[in-house]
Amino acid sequence: MARIVMKFGGTSVADMDRIRNVARHVKREVDAGHEVAVVVSAMSGKTNELVAWTRDASPMHDAREYDAVVASGEQVTSGLLAIALQHIGINARSWQGWQIPIRTDNAHGAARILDIDGSDIVRRMGEGQVAVIAGFQGLGPDNRIATLGRGGSDTSAVAIAAAVKADRCDIYTDVDGVYTTDPRIEPKARRMKKIAFEEMLEMASLGAKVLQVRSVELAMVHKVRTFVRSSFEDPDAPGMGDVLNPPGTLICDEDEIVEQEVVTGIAYAKDEAQISLRRLADRPGVSAAIFGPLAEAHINVDMIVQNISEDGSKTDMTFTVPSSDVAKAMKVLEENKARIGFDVAQTESGLCKVSVIGIGMRSHAGVAASAFRALAEKSINIKAITTSEIKISILIDGAYAELAVRTLHSAYGLDKT
Amino acid sequence: MARIVMKFGGTSVADMDRIRNVARHVKREVDAGHEVAVVVSAMSGKTNELVAWTRDASPMHDAREYDAVVASGEQVTSGLLAIALQHIGINARSWQGWQIPIRTDNAHGAARILDIDGSDIVRRMGEGQVAVIAGFQGLGPDNRIATLGRGGSDTSAVAIAAAVKADRCDIYTDVDGVYTTDPRIEPKARRMKKIAFEEMLEMASLGAKVLQVRSVELAMVHKVRTFVRSSFEDPDAPGMGDVLNPPGTLICDEDEIVEQEVVTGIAYAKDEAQISLRRLADRPGVSAAIFGPLAEAHINVDMIVQNISEDGSKTDMTFTVPSSDVAKAMKVLEENKARIGFDVAQTESGLCKVSVIGIGMRSHAGVAASAFRALAEKSINIKAITTSEIKISILIDGAYAELAVRTLHSAYGLDKT
Repeated sequence: MARIVMKFGGTSVADMDRIRNVARHVKREVDAGHEVAVVVSAMSGKTNELVAWTRDASPMHDAREYDAVVASGEQVTSGLLAIALQHIGINARSWQGWQIPIRTDNAHGAARILDIDGSDIVRRMGEGQVAVIAGFQGLGPDNRIATLGRGGSDTSAVAIAAAVKADRCDIYTDVDGVYTTDPRIEPKARRMKKIAFEEMLEMASLGAKVLQVRSVELAMVHKVRTFVRSSFEDPDAPGMGDVLNPPGTLICDEDEIVEQEVVTGIAYAKDEAQISLRRLADRPGVSAAIFGPLAEAHINVDMIVQNISEDGSKTDMTFTVPSSDVAKAMKVLEENKARIGFDVAQTESGLCKVSVIGIGMRSHAGVAASAFRALAEKSINIKAITTSEIKISILIDGAYAELAVRTLHSAYGLDKT
Repeated sequence: MARIVMKFGGTSVADMDRIRNVARHVKREVDAGHEVAVVVSAMSGKTNELVAWTRDASPMHDAREYDAVVASGEQVTSGLLAIALQHIGINARSWQGWQIPIRTDNAHGAARILDIDGSDIVRRMGEGQVAVIAGFQGLGPDNRIATLGRGGSDTSAVAIAAAVKADRCDIYTDVDGVYTTDPRIEPKARRMKKIAFEEMLEMASLGAKVLQVRSVELAMVHKVRTFVRSSFEDPDAPGMGDVLNPPGTLICDEDEIVEQEVVTGIAYAKDEAQISLRRLADRPGVSAAIFGPLAEAHINVDMIVQNISEDGSKTDMTFTVPSSDVAKAMKVLEENKARIGFDVAQTESGLCKVSVIGIGMRSHAGVAASAFRALAEKSINIKAITTSEIKISILIDGAYAELAVRTLHSAYGLDKT
């Protein structure tokens, strides 16, 4: 007997047929004797419809009212799934964030979970009742509904799993696990059995859209063993009810991964852009003068490279931003030109950041050199490099994105079983 | 300065343009210096969509889950209207039933309001904030959302008006008031300036669909002065902001109506059916044997006529039910045939009940006789009659419904200004 939190995203609850399918997944776990809590998103498309209405009502809408409107999507799904479960003989009830309560801070629209009182749910799970919980929302200190921001249902699920001390948090989605890289680019990509929290955090931050970054952070902090698995498989297919090794990818503590690979995955993020400031005064405080105003404008600056100044007075500074932020960033830079003191600002769009990720890098030298060599053999020019303890990110021309991903995937032997 | 509750139904908030129009109605009252609470329904069509989903999930759905799903419609509208009000400079916030709270009993899906704590809303109205309240719902003793049944937003509005001691409750709808009869049948029908609670109760019970019966009952008990008026008129047209006499019909205590007419209106209900039980044993308890099982099957029996038995042993009993309930009623009667002891049951569908309503009847004789005479002149056959202190109902063949309505409307001089 285990205690399991199951989370189903928008495409998994898109209509009543899909919701009935979810009910069968839940029934399988209940029939196996497990205690089950389910976290659901809004039916796919619903949240977008509700958000569009709030924007139509006013471009400057009150985030508290936005939350009241948008949270209704998950409320609907939770009630419908509870009914669908009851219909197939499963004792179930819906829970809204304010009923549990899931207490959040006051940052409406992007709230953080502060505390979850899991006692009622745990007691009822012990009595055999499935808790169907509306994801993405909680109750703010103002006694009003607060949503966690887009994709927040993953975060709800992991936080609830931590609160009820679940043995496992299963994130059901439209893919069947986490792959060594994007299978649409590299058909030889393999589904991982396990990946460490830190690695998944890098994968999610770098473009693998399987899980929200915040939910991975939360899972890491609370050591919530999290499975990424498919809601589209037959709920009663062989092995689906396996307690220890259900089909999918387990995100877990690195200690649980016995044979750690040096490199576990290749991630990429397209639509990166570079901005170069030429003949910049090389003096203390210049970085603050550049990046302070950009941060205030909520522009996410990523890789930063500064040339060593030849004569000690002027230098060049290059950094990357998402392509969609280039125009805004250039406006901010022009407004602060006098204070920053640069000669000219140049931009280049259509770049791609390819990243090699693996906890094993910590104890292995030469990982970066292999990447550079492999890319050089394909004549792929490297525009910038950043590294961390478990990751190497390389900026290249976007036209080479797919080739670079496949090249690195092969260079580290990830396409071999 | 007055305290006003404004209620807007589904067609009045059908889309964002209509919601913006509602915001203008609210702004008019706020600009005039009034304290305002607004009660909203779901966007028209939304409730039906949500109800259909719960039925699809299971025909035998849990009423508590039905409530969680269906109440989301009003939640959305309340948030959107609050945003639309803020957009035009009006201080406003949304309130869900559980936040106020509006406490109900445990009859999920058809709950009754037990108590409303209006203190928070009154305080904030005093600070100039408009309360935008999700209608149709409250919080049950189980700490779960409970809905009041279809059309319950009218009841929400009147209950809130009573709780905050409002000077007026304005029910904005798709008609501009209560008419002496249905203007689609009798173009000479006149909009009434005022109608007494008791009369409106009869009108609503007898087919005038302007207001829910329960909301009128509640208004009568708490003496809430209620205006029925149109949300489709220009919010800033002359007279719309009149405090004492806004355009529409005031439903009020009879004492407030100085010149009371003998007859104030003609109502009708189509799709009535008659059931006759022939050669029934004329003994004590036979009525209970018939109407007990029908009541248990939730069949609404209306007019009942029993012939005096000629020889003291056998009689005939005739009563009316809605046409849609005939088959169910006949099934119940057949199942209980032995216990009731009748010879044969006959049915006739396609009947119409026409009713003459007026508080003035109490002190005027001959009102019924005028109706019978007028109908006889048009050769309309009367199948059954029931009377109360302020109402005469006459059952006729449905083919004569419109003619009968026009005939009675004219007979009592209602088409004269």
